[in-house]
Amino acid sequence: MHNVGAKERIELVRGNRNVDRKVNNMCEANAYIRSGQQEELILENVDRIIPVGDGLLLEDIFGHRKHIKARIQELSLVDHKIYLEKLED
Amino acid sequence: MHNVGAKERIELVRGNRNVDRKVNNMCEANAYIRSGQQEELILENVDRIIPVGDGLLLEDIFGHRKHIKARIQELSLVDHKIYLEKLED
Repeated sequence: MHNVGAKERIELVRGNRNVDRKVNNMCEANAYIRSGQQEELILENVDRIIPVGDGLLLEDIFGHRKHIKARIQELSLVDHKIYLEKLED
Repeated sequence: MHNVGAKERIELVRGNRNVDRKVNNMCEANAYIRSGQQEELILENVDRIIPVGDGLLLEDIFGHRKHIKARIQELSLVDHKIYLEKLED
């Protein structure tokens, strides 16, 4: 194991704290398709949603995108949940 | 000033920490009406959004509700921003 000095250790702790803070402040949500009593998780850690044509463009915090033919049914931000309703083709 | 004992002080500090944590974890967003380059803040600390009829029902974390004839233009959750587009009467 690599031996770290006191100063380096403090930096490591500080670094971890910053990561913690960053993670805590991330306000992404999970997107679910809801039909009846069923909830299907379709994308985690969603950052952005943009209505595009006949659907929605979802983008997660890593930049991954998903286009889905659906509309927003409910947003519950404090619960980190986005409920979508699928549109028929 | 009321004098607090050591045990009580620790509880106070713990209490504050919990409040801090709660505030940090709150993932509400601010809702703006966007038209051209203009952004008008219409509701802060929005928790829930539900499409209702020809508009949106916004509810903040305190339970205050606002109905607005608009549609969602963009959600940017990590930035705590909800952009709406006003619909014509």
